[in-house]
Amino acid sequence: MLELRLVQGSLLKKVLEAIRELVTDANFDCSGTGFSLQAMDSSHVALVALLLRSEGFEHYRCDRNLSMGMNLNNVSKMLRCAGNDDIVTIKADDGSDTVTFMFESPSQWNLSHSVFFFLCLFVEWLSFLRKGQDKIADFEMKLMDIDSEHLGIPEAEYHAIVRMPSSEFARICKDLSSIGDTVVISVTKEGVKFSTKGDIGTANIVCRQNTTVDKPEEATIIEMKEPVTLTFALRYMNSFTKATPLSSTVSLSLSSELPIVVEYKIAEMGYIRFYLAPKIEDEEEDVKPQV
Amino acid sequence: MLELRLVQGSLLKKVLEAIRELVTDANFDCSGTGFSLQAMDSSHVALVALLLRSEGFEHYRCDRNLSMGMNLNNVSKMLRCAGNDDIVTIKADDGSDTVTFMFESPSQWNLSHSVFFFLCLFVEWLSFLRKGQDKIADFEMKLMDIDSEHLGIPEAEYHAIVRMPSSEFARICKDLSSIGDTVVISVTKEGVKFSTKGDIGTANIVCRQNTTVDKPEEATIIEMKEPVTLTFALRYMNSFTKATPLSSTVSLSLSSELPIVVEYKIAEMGYIRFYLAPKIEDEEEDVKPQV
Amino acid sequence: MLELRLVQGSLLKKVLEAIRELVTDANFDCSGTGFSLQAMDSSHVALVALLLRSEGFEHYRCDRNLSMGMNLNNVSKMLRCAGNDDIVTIKADDGSDTVTFMFESPSQWNLSHSVFFFLCLFVEWLSFLRKGQDKIADFEMKLMDIDSEHLGIPEAEYHAIVRMPSSEFARICKDLSSIGDTVVISVTKEGVKFSTKGDIGTANIVCRQNTTVDKPEEATIIEMKEPVTLTFALRYMNSFTKATPLSSTVSLSLSSELPIVVEYKIAEMGYIRFYLAPKIEDEEEDVKPQV
Repeated sequence: MLELRLVQGSLLKKVLEAIRELVTDANFDCSGTGFSLQAMDSSHVALVALLLRSEGFEHYRCDRNLSMGMNLNNVSKMLRCAGNDDIVTIKADDGSDTVTFMFESPSQWNLSHSVFFFLCLFVEWLSFLRKGQDKIADFEMKLMDIDSEHLGIPEAEYHAIVRMPSSEFARICKDLSSIGDTVVISVTKEGVKFSTKGDIGTANIVCRQNTTVDKPEEATIIEMKEPVTLTFALRYMNSFTKATPLSSTVSLSLSSELPIVVEYKIAEMGYIRFYLAPKIEDEEEDVKPQV
Repeated sequence: MLELRLVQGSLLKKVLEAIRELVTDANFDCSGTGFSLQAMDSSHVALVALLLRSEGFEHYRCDRNLSMGMNLNNVSKMLRCAGNDDIVTIKADDGSDTVTFMFESPSQWNLSHSVFFFLCLFVEWLSFLRKGQDKIADFEMKLMDIDSEHLGIPEAEYHAIVRMPSSEFARICKDLSSIGDTVVISVTKEGVKFSTKGDIGTANIVCRQNTTVDKPEEATIIEMKEPVTLTFALRYMNSFTKATPLSSTVSLSLSSELPIVVEYKIAEMGYIRFYLAPKIEDEEEDVKPQV
Repeated sequence: MLELRLVQGSLLKKVLEAIRELVTDANFDCSGTGFSLQAMDSSHVALVALLLRSEGFEHYRCDRNLSMGMNLNNVSKMLRCAGNDDIVTIKADDGSDTVTFMFESPSQWNLSHSVFFFLCLFVEWLSFLRKGQDKIADFEMKLMDIDSEHLGIPEAEYHAIVRMPSSEFARICKDLSSIGDTVVISVTKEGVKFSTKGDIGTANIVCRQNTTVDKPEEATIIEMKEPVTLTFALRYMNSFTKATPLSSTVSLSLSSELPIVVEYKIAEMGYIRFYLAPKIEDEEEDVKPQV
């Protein structure tokens, strides 16, 4: 039997929105350690890997390993029925061909104005005595059989890792895709440059290393062993940035001859990682030959 | 001669938006008691009844009963030209084939910052001396001849009446329609259950009776003589919820063998009521035979 | 060499949005006095004239007069990549067939909460020492050869000039175009009347002269030598109102036998002016024969 209870239900909605554009059908794998997914996009160019560790759930029970095939659009339809403050529980019986999503709305008093805060604490305690939520929804969805092979992704050493605000990365990918189709990412000690070229002209956006910021999530931090310049399809980058609401920062791990890893950490629970192979093209003319 | 002056002009805009999706052409009936409308939707499945009592108008003059046929999309086009703070006056001469909507914008000083409040009171008094608004719009629209019969709707006793927040009812209808086409509404003492079934799975949403809330409009109150389970087309329910901006609560009156009444009260003026016959289907398997 | 630096970069975005619907390709003319544009719309009915005086730029260098042909949709694509707080620099080398737009984001500390204001002043001074912005984008765009003749627009005396809030003028044009295709503008001492007529009815909106307002930009001021009534195509008027974000007021200059001038002032820099010839139609029945 499987029963996972997540207080921050809106997180699951964001996870689905993050991967739904890239992947149509996928297996969600549950084990003692956590809830995970690994899937290729339909053109087998990009890979997405999701991990939500068991410790992040309020309640996590998974009696034996389970792989549940789901159509992500259907999951998304069901999750969109959850309120942003709802507690979400995922349930499945062993051997069952369905999964149930249960949404509990917090009682409405709890949402009242902050002046009522202490009153609410009291009322919440009463609510606890009443043992129940005022609105409970459960959605039962049929599971699918999906063939998939689980790729072992080896730990790798990267030439450069860039950490930057996720909203800025999203903005850059969006801006560049109004000019061209590919982005050249060049990392040097001073900063990271995103470039593109199209019919109407060229664009270069440079973000300097910047650690002296008010809030750590606004920093741009570059860890570099060697300068690296790689070219990627902007279409995929833009798909990856659907994960922006999950984290205020993103990290880009780059090595020549390795796929880029675009990682969004999910606070205290895990991550979504997107892998994309670089394009081998003439645009990489800026690369200095590496001795 | 007809002359109706409504200070809260935005209310008329909301009324039009509430019924415009369901009804294309309709007769507005004016009498000494109020301004009303009764119309079937184009497929003759749902009925809408509107009443705005004369007491709710700042000025109400209706020399003799008048029935004015209007295309609701055209009325809506004209009302959308009224600002949300405008005073609306509806005028028609006896025997005329046109109706005039007049919109008066409050003077702009009145809208200024609250620090200027007392200054404004003085200025408003000056404005009163000047006897006039700064912007006045009048829209004259041709009337139509529409055949319609006025149905007498008998007062009925209902097995169950559910009062709940209108936004929650709207959300439930919207959520369920992403899964299925019909909703089964079951009322018991404990609460009301909304269920649907579709290709991708099933959904059940239970709202418990809940009267211990901060604000009365957040309560869910069930008055029940007998448990009742009925099935309705979600498409119509979703149309009815266009009236949500008119009232913070909605009431659902249910009886087996009677159409459901979905009522939105219009504060101090009247109501919009929607009537819809239940579907006779196998989904009603939950109904206990009533002795 | 040309180098224009504008601290308020969002202003350029607004200028482009204001004229892009009307004009596809146009020459931007740079001289010692300023940055300007004059273009007809594609149907050669309306004329737009833009002036941004050199004094309004933080830095303005224009070694010799330059006319740069640009596709406005492409310029708009590039400018949409500038943040609203970005500083924009326009650069072109003499004889070059490209123009470069450079966007500098203010450092993110500067954007932090006001409680950090004094800290920020200090940090900004550090930033100054570091000599640089954290994000710099440059977009290079190919120029086009566009044939155009520069019309001399003679200074004219107008029968009436109406100054009113630009948002109100935009609202009126939008409202009337849901009823009819043309607007009749009649100016008398008391006010200005906008009228239209369509299949569903007629509409008249009267704005009275009103100078006793809290804020000067909310005034409606009429300077009139003779009453005037003219008819215009609403489609063009609605296009002109795309300039509304540039100024809180608009002025309409009217004379029989002259095009209307719809002017939006650009604070401390210049203006956008739209010229449109009146329609010669029977709707002008309100015009009194002028002796």
